Amino acid sequence: MTPEEFRQAGYAVVDWIADYWATLPQRPVTSQDPPGAVAAELPSGPPTQGEPVEAILTDLGKLVAPGLTHWQHPGFFGYFPANTSGPSVLGDLVSAGLGVQGMLWATGPACTELETVMLDWLAEALDLPARFRSTGRGGGVIQDSASSATLVATLVALHRAAGGRWREVGVDRRYRVYTSTEAHSSIEKAARIAGLGTDGVRLIEVDPATRAMSPTALRAAIEADRAAGVVPALVVATVGTTSTTAVDPLPQIGPVCAEYGVFLHVDAAYAGAAAVCPELRFGHAGLEYADSYCFDPHKWLLTGFDCDAFWVADAGELVEALTVLPEYLRNAATESGAVVDYRDWQVPLGRRFRALKLWFVLRWYGIEGLREHIRRGVALAARFADRVRADDRFELVAPHPYALVCFRLRGPDGPNEELLARVNATGRVFLTHTRVAGRHTLRLAVGSPQSTETHVDEAWAIISEAAADAIPA
Amino acid sequence: MTPEEFRQAGYAVVDWIADYWATLPQRPVTSQDPPGAVAAELPSGPPTQGEPVEAILTDLGKLVAPGLTHWQHPGFFGYFPANTSGPSVLGDLVSAGLGVQGMLWATGPACTELETVMLDWLAEALDLPARFRSTGRGGGVIQDSASSATLVATLVALHRAAGGRWREVGVDRRYRVYTSTEAHSSIEKAARIAGLGTDGVRLIEVDPATRAMSPTALRAAIEADRAAGVVPALVVATVGTTSTTAVDPLPQIGPVCAEYGVFLHVDAAYAGAAAVCPELRFGHAGLEYADSYCFDPHKWLLTGFDCDAFWVADAGELVEALTVLPEYLRNAATESGAVVDYRDWQVPLGRRFRALKLWFVLRWYGIEGLREHIRRGVALAARFADRVRADDRFELVAPHPYALVCFRLRGPDGPNEELLARVNATGRVFLTHTRVAGRHTLRLAVGSPQSTETHVDEAWAIISEAAADAIPA
Ligand SMILES: Cc1ncc(COP(=O)(O)O)c(C=O)c1O
Ligand SMILES: Cc1ncc(COP(=O)(O)O)c(C=O)c1O
Repeated sequence: MTPEEFRQAGYAVVDWIADYWATLPQRPVTSQDPPGAVAAELPSGPPTQGEPVEAILTDLGKLVAPGLTHWQHPGFFGYFPANTSGPSVLGDLVSAGLGVQGMLWATGPACTELETVMLDWLAEALDLPARFRSTGRGGGVIQDSASSATLVATLVALHRAAGGRWREVGVDRRYRVYTSTEAHSSIEKAARIAGLGTDGVRLIEVDPATRAMSPTALRAAIEADRAAGVVPALVVATVGTTSTTAVDPLPQIGPVCAEYGVFLHVDAAYAGAAAVCPELRFGHAGLEYADSYCFDPHKWLLTGFDCDAFWVADAGELVEALTVLPEYLRNAATESGAVVDYRDWQVPLGRRFRALKLWFVLRWYGIEGLREHIRRGVALAARFADRVRADDRFELVAPHPYALVCFRLRGPDGPNEELLARVNATGRVFLTHTRVAGRHTLRLAVGSPQSTETHVDEAWAIISEAAADAIPA
Repeated sequence: MTPEEFRQAGYAVVDWIADYWATLPQRPVTSQDPPGAVAAELPSGPPTQGEPVEAILTDLGKLVAPGLTHWQHPGFFGYFPANTSGPSVLGDLVSAGLGVQGMLWATGPACTELETVMLDWLAEALDLPARFRSTGRGGGVIQDSASSATLVATLVALHRAAGGRWREVGVDRRYRVYTSTEAHSSIEKAARIAGLGTDGVRLIEVDPATRAMSPTALRAAIEADRAAGVVPALVVATVGTTSTTAVDPLPQIGPVCAEYGVFLHVDAAYAGAAAVCPELRFGHAGLEYADSYCFDPHKWLLTGFDCDAFWVADAGELVEALTVLPEYLRNAATESGAVVDYRDWQVPLGRRFRALKLWFVLRWYGIEGLREHIRRGVALAARFADRVRADDRFELVAPHPYALVCFRLRGPDGPNEELLARVNATGRVFLTHTRVAGRHTLRLAVGSPQSTETHVDEAWAIISEAAADAIPA
C-alpha cells in the first residue's frame, strides 16, 4: 500500500470511526447474537488474492460491529470503564504509523524519552510521592495492564526477599504474598505465574463496613507466618477495589510493611485516575510507604487500552531482577549507562510507542480537562446513588467515593439476578454484578465521556421499572 | 472531542503519516542525538489547559520524529524487522476507535470470534498441523510478543510437570527447561519469571556448523538430569534463531520429548512467517510433535507490533493452568461452556481487538501478496549474500535460509566492530551485530517492504567502502 493509497483509505477509516461514534447511542449496548454467530459468517480460510479496503469496511459494519459489546456507548455502565477518546485514538494511530519498536533506548530514543517524561507528567498530575519521579532513583513505565504491573512488582519483591538471588535460584515455597479478600484476581494470578501457587497467597480479611483491608489482621498474619518460618515477601494494597472501590488504609499498612521489611505494591488500577483532582486524593494518603504503584489511564483517564502506568521507587532493583543481555541487544548507549532500556522493566521484550497516546491526551485535555471529566463521573454516580437512596425497595451496599455505585434490591439474591438480566436485556444500558459479603449486588460504573445526566436517568428509569417485575408480588 | 472534531483531526493525522512514509527514505535511519536530547525539549509538566491537535502535530514533527530509529525505513536492516503496512495501521486504527476490551467473550463476542478465526486462517496459511486448529482440542490466540508466548508455554509445562497441581502449590526447584545455547534470551527470562531462576535452564550445545540444537546432547542432558532426580519440564526449540536463523531439528527433538513426556514449545518468532510459502516450510518438519508453537506476524508478516500468534494443542490444559474466576467476571456465556474467554490464555486480563489488524492484512494482501513479500525478502538477502561471497575480504558466517545474512571481515573482531560503527554512522543504513562461535559478526536482515534492490545494493556499496577504511593497512 503506497502512502497515497494509505491516505485515501485512511480518510475512509476515519470516517467510519466518526460515524460509529455518532451512531453509537442508537445501537444496542451489547450484541444480541448467540455464541458462534460471527464466526459462522466468516470464510473458513484466508483469501488467495487481495481485496480492496472498501470490501473490508463493508464487512466491518455488517459482521463485526453488530457482534460487539460497545464499551464506549453512553449506556455502558459495566465492570470498570475502558475509556478512550479522540486524542487517544489519534496518538495510537501515530504510533501504529511510525511502527517503532522501543525495546531499547537505541531502538527508539524519542519513544523511551517521551515515555519517561509522560510518566513524570502523570506523577505530577496525580501528585505522587517524589520517590517515583525519574529524577531520583525511581521512575515510571507503561505496562499493558495492571495485571502485568502487579506481576512485575511480585517479581521484584521475590528478588528482594531472596537477598538478590532470585534471578539465579528461583522462588522458594516459603515466600508469601498478602492481599485482601476483596483484591483483584490479578494478584492471585501474578503469584501463580511467579511460581508461588495459590497456596502462596494469604487473603487478609476486610472491615465488614468499608470492605478495606484490616491492618490488624495483616500484622497478625505476617507475625504468625514469620513465627512459622514463612517469609512475607509482598503486600498488595488496593486503592479502589473492583467490587466496591474500597480503599485499603495505606497509613496503617505502610508501617507494618516497613517494620517487617515487606515490599509494598499499591494497585489503584481504577481509582488512581481520580487523583488528578486534589479533592479526590484521599486514597493516596500513605503512598510514600509504597515500593511500587500502578493505575490504569485506560480505565478512567480517556486513554485507550492498553495503558497502565507503573512506578517503582528503586528502578535499579527492578532492572537487576529482570535484565538479560544477549550479545545481539548490546549497544553503545546501553553500555554507557546513560539511558533507560524499558525492555528490562517488563515481561515482553518488544514495545509499542504507547507514550504517544498519553501525550495526545494530556495535551489535548490539559489537567483541567481531565479534572472536569473525573468530576462529571463522580457527580453522575452521586446523582444515581441519590435515586437509589430515595427508593425504599433498594439499598446502597457500600460507599461510593468515586464513580461506582453498588446497590441491590433489599432481600434475597434471586430478584437481583433477575433484575440484572431484565435491565441488560433492554439493550439500552449494560451493568454487571458482584458479591458483597456474599450477597448478589449490582454495579453501575460511570465512566464514558458520552454518558450524561440523560443516560444515567434513563438507566435509573429502566432499573426502577424492571424492579417492579423482578420483585415477586 | 466530538465525532466531527475527530474526523477533521483524523484526516490531519492520516496526512502526517502518509507524508512521513513518503519522506522516510530521505531521513537518516537513526537519530543522531545524544541521550536526553528529546526529553530536554519537552516541558517538565503537563499543560493546565488543553491544546489543539495542530500544536501536538507540530511538536511531533519537530521533537519526536527526528529522535527516532526508523524501523520502517528502507535502509533499516537491523535486528529482525518489525514490519508494519498500511492495512495493518488501518486495522489497528479501527481497533483503537472501537475501544473494545475483549477479556471475555461476553465483553466483545466479535473480538473473540474474529481472533479464533484469524488464528485458524493463519494456521492454514502456514499449513500448521491440524492439532492447532480451533476445530479440535487446540487453538490459537494473539499474544503481545513471542516472549509472552514462551512464558505462557512455560507455565503450562510446569502445570503438566506437577501433575496439574502447579496452580495450587507453585514451582518445584527440581523442574528444568531445556533450550539451545543459541536460543533467544526470552526463554531464560520466562524461566526466571516462572520462578525457576537461571539455574533452572539447561543450555544445550549446538552443531558448530549449522548452529542448530544437538538432539543427542538434548537426550544426554535429559537422561542425566532424570538420573539425578531432576524433572525435565519443557524443551523450547527454535525455528530461526536470532543470531543466524538456525533451525533446530524437530524431527529428532520431538521424539525425545515424547519419550520422556516433556512439553515441547517451538519458537519460530521470526522465521514462522516464511511458511506462507510452500517452499519455505522446511523448518516446520516435525512440528506435529509440538505442544505449542508461536511466530510473530509483527516481525515479517506486515502486521504492526504487537502481534504474536500462539497455538496450543490442548487448550483445556492451558485454561486450567491460568484461569481465576472472581464473581465480577462471571457471566452466562462463560458458564455455558460454549465460548472462549481469551483472558485465560494470557498473562494480562484486558485485551485489545488485535485480530482486526490481522484481518485487514490477510484480506488486503491475500495469501499470494504475502508470499510475494516473503519471497522478495529472501531474494534480496540472497542477492546481498552473493556480493559478500564474491568479495575475498569477507566471509559468510552461516547459511541464510531466510532473509538474514550473517557476515564478517575475515580475521580479528576489531575491524568488524569498526566496520559496523562506520556503516551505521552514515545514517543511510542500519545493521546490528551478534557473536557466532565467539566471533563478532554483522547481521543484515531484509524485511521492510520499502527495501528494494537499490537499497540492498546501496548497503553493500557502503559496507564495501567502509571495509576499506576499517581494515588496517
Ligand atoms: C483493582 C483492580 N486491579 C487490577 C485490575 C486489572 O486491570 P487490567 O485489565 O489493567 O489488568 C482491575 C480491573 O478491573 C482492578 O479493578
Ligand atoms: C527467535 C526469537 N524468539 C523470540 C524473540 C522475541 O520476540 P518478541 O519481541 O516478540 O518477544 C525474538 C526476537 O527477535 C526471536 O528472534
